Amino acid sequence: MPIMSSQKIFNEAEAGFAHCIAANSGANNTTTPLSVHVEHKEQEDQETFPGGFEGPEKKLDIRFCSKYTGKNSGPKSGLRSIGKEQWQSVLDSARCTIISSTSNQYLDSYVLSESSLFVYPRRVMIKTCGTTTLLHLIEKMTQLAKDTCGLEVEMLVFSRKNLNNPGKQIFPHCTFSDEVDYLNKIFNNAGHAYVMGPLNKDHWNCYIIDNRRSSTIRRTEQTFEVMMHDLDPQVMKQFFKRDGVSAWDTTVSSGISNLLPGSIIDDYQFDPCGYSMNGMLDKWYWTIHITPEDHCSYVSFDTNIALPSYHILLANILKVFRPGRFTAALYAEDGAPCGDPYFAFDSQLLEHAITNKTVHSFDGGIDPVRLSINNNFAVERYKDKKY
Amino acid sequence: MPIMSSQKIFNEAEAGFAHCIAANSGANNTTTPLSVHVEHKEQEDQETFPGGFEGPEKKLDIRFCSKYTGKNSGPKSGLRSIGKEQWQSVLDSARCTIISSTSNQYLDSYVLSESSLFVYPRRVMIKTCGTTTLLHLIEKMTQLAKDTCGLEVEMLVFSRKNLNNPGKQIFPHCTFSDEVDYLNKIFNNAGHAYVMGPLNKDHWNCYIIDNRRSSTIRRTEQTFEVMMHDLDPQVMKQFFKRDGVSAWDTTVSSGISNLLPGSIIDDYQFDPCGYSMNGMLDKWYWTIHITPEDHCSYVSFDTNIALPSYHILLANILKVFRPGRFTAALYAEDGAPCGDPYFAFDSQLLEHAITNKTVHSFDGGIDPVRLSINNNFAVERYKDKKY
Repeated sequence: MPIMSSQKIFNEAEAGFAHCIAANSGANNTTTPLSVHVEHKEQEDQETFPGGFEGPEKKLDIRFCSKYTGKNSGPKSGLRSIGKEQWQSVLDSARCTIISSTSNQYLDSYVLSESSLFVYPRRVMIKTCGTTTLLHLIEKMTQLAKDTCGLEVEMLVFSRKNLNNPGKQIFPHCTFSDEVDYLNKIFNNAGHAYVMGPLNKDHWNCYIIDNRRSSTIRRTEQTFEVMMHDLDPQVMKQFFKRDGVSAWDTTVSSGISNLLPGSIIDDYQFDPCGYSMNGMLDKWYWTIHITPEDHCSYVSFDTNIALPSYHILLANILKVFRPGRFTAALYAEDGAPCGDPYFAFDSQLLEHAITNKTVHSFDGGIDPVRLSINNNFAVERYKDKKY
Repeated sequence: MPIMSSQKIFNEAEAGFAHCIAANSGANNTTTPLSVHVEHKEQEDQETFPGGFEGPEKKLDIRFCSKYTGKNSGPKSGLRSIGKEQWQSVLDSARCTIISSTSNQYLDSYVLSESSLFVYPRRVMIKTCGTTTLLHLIEKMTQLAKDTCGLEVEMLVFSRKNLNNPGKQIFPHCTFSDEVDYLNKIFNNAGHAYVMGPLNKDHWNCYIIDNRRSSTIRRTEQTFEVMMHDLDPQVMKQFFKRDGVSAWDTTVSSGISNLLPGSIIDDYQFDPCGYSMNGMLDKWYWTIHITPEDHCSYVSFDTNIALPSYHILLANILKVFRPGRFTAALYAEDGAPCGDPYFAFDSQLLEHAITNKTVHSFDGGIDPVRLSINNNFAVERYKDKKY
């Protein structure tokens, strides 16, 4: 059952992400005892992409509250009551489409033509790569949340790594400054903007609105992201489409399925190359997106699983993907199980030199929120390293 | 003995810092048992400044090493062998002039028409305010260091707080991006650039070149800066020129002289308002610059004194100046007595809400360097606070 929107009116070649649009890539419904695999849908489009793909995603993580009480009340299903067609209509503004969807009792997962959408009753996490226009969907989405569920924005985090070819983006995504202005116009200058890490090397841009009030139910969220570049070509060749090899075959053989065992996994192998997966483990999401071409190789890992330490997970991720360099980003609210991100990573344990570490802590008066990024630039020194 | 350079060819009114140029402001040679005061020179120019003065300074802290060995060898006096006239010739490029100079066995101190210059045998710290063009002097200064002393740049830190009116600056100082490009051109992209703190609120821009090699003699430098805004008008009125009140009278009555007792102090009261002081305490420098006008009030404190903790000093500074909001910045090399800047300030001890804290750590392969800034924005909540 194809679920591509018929309203897709943009030009993928122009938008520069055609390698993410695949055809006839139905996957086998193979499962392991540890993970549940979701059978896959077909895709209509097939185009080749002439240049380097923009793997690094733009990401929006928005939490909502009832506009009447400031608390997380309202209908139990909240944003999950919004149907797939309505989400597609929102996603049209960002120029991407739903490929597949999965659900469990806590959340809905959507694999997109460019990355992923996860929907909780009071939270939406959406990330899109390529030249998608993620911020264009905010007004439509917040209006939908208000009209359908009586919800308003309680916290918003927009973030992205520095892009490879920012000049190829569509306004306001060419510069972080334009993105900040765009968000400030929508939200009446309610946010704070940060550039974490060196401006002229790998860094992480972040814009945060914290509208929590003293009446807000206290939450202790944390999210963990790893953004990897210069990946081992031997690893990356698994993520080029091969006859007779399903996405699930690759998910298992690459080691991805073992990163967080027991998950429901919805994976997708793009043609001619590129791979996406959404995972659900209990109430947590995780997602991986892979741009395997050697000249622009990029892999992202993202989860909100509330581990007390990400050391083992990060070490396993590095072992699976063998990046030349990576950036690990952590978002943690006060009381989050991971504790203070300043202590989250020990480069000696990772056997990687962390050459840049930035931690930012801000306190809007309710609870502090802490962000951290750790950059590893030591490509040459670690290329021979045994992972 | 006036020491103004006859080569001063720029237009102060255009440059926008005329309030820093004072006339006939000879100070008394009053001393206390705790501090040594330097008798002052006269100034030639007298102009009034029509608009808000740009108090926040641009700062260059450069350490040099011998280009032949990479070690801190060479003639003992090093950069101190460069004469006042040669320094003025360098300062011409930045559009500012030497008002006064003092020396002790470790360093030379220069009070400038806009801020300060300190010269050690292997180190120069220069900060200039207003619309000065600090970066314009780099090439001349590094050439002079090379030709006169056989020295080359080992570390360079360019930093400044966000400006009030960046549009009034002269290229490349209108944007941090231009400043970074300018520095990268001179130093072949050797530096890393950071924006610490929120882009759209008080923040601190920093550009760092670390050319230390394994043969470099290990140093454990630290510098501490406090940048204060919205100061108590009752405090600020002391820094408007008053008949019969010398700069030294103000240095004592304001409490400045007690901040680091035992120092040699070279102070200057500008006409009609504005105040600068350079202090030398043993081998350490400290300096304060005050823009007292209510609509643009700003005070900076800067020192390289190697305290294990800056809590008491910071508390005393806040007590003397009573800012509405402030930014405290710390630069610390591995092994510096202050330890890890992440733990440098406890807002509970300060009785100030630290609303934003950013710590950046980078490791170029020799020793890590850590930067931190702490921002206090809680103006309203703390205006009534007893300091």
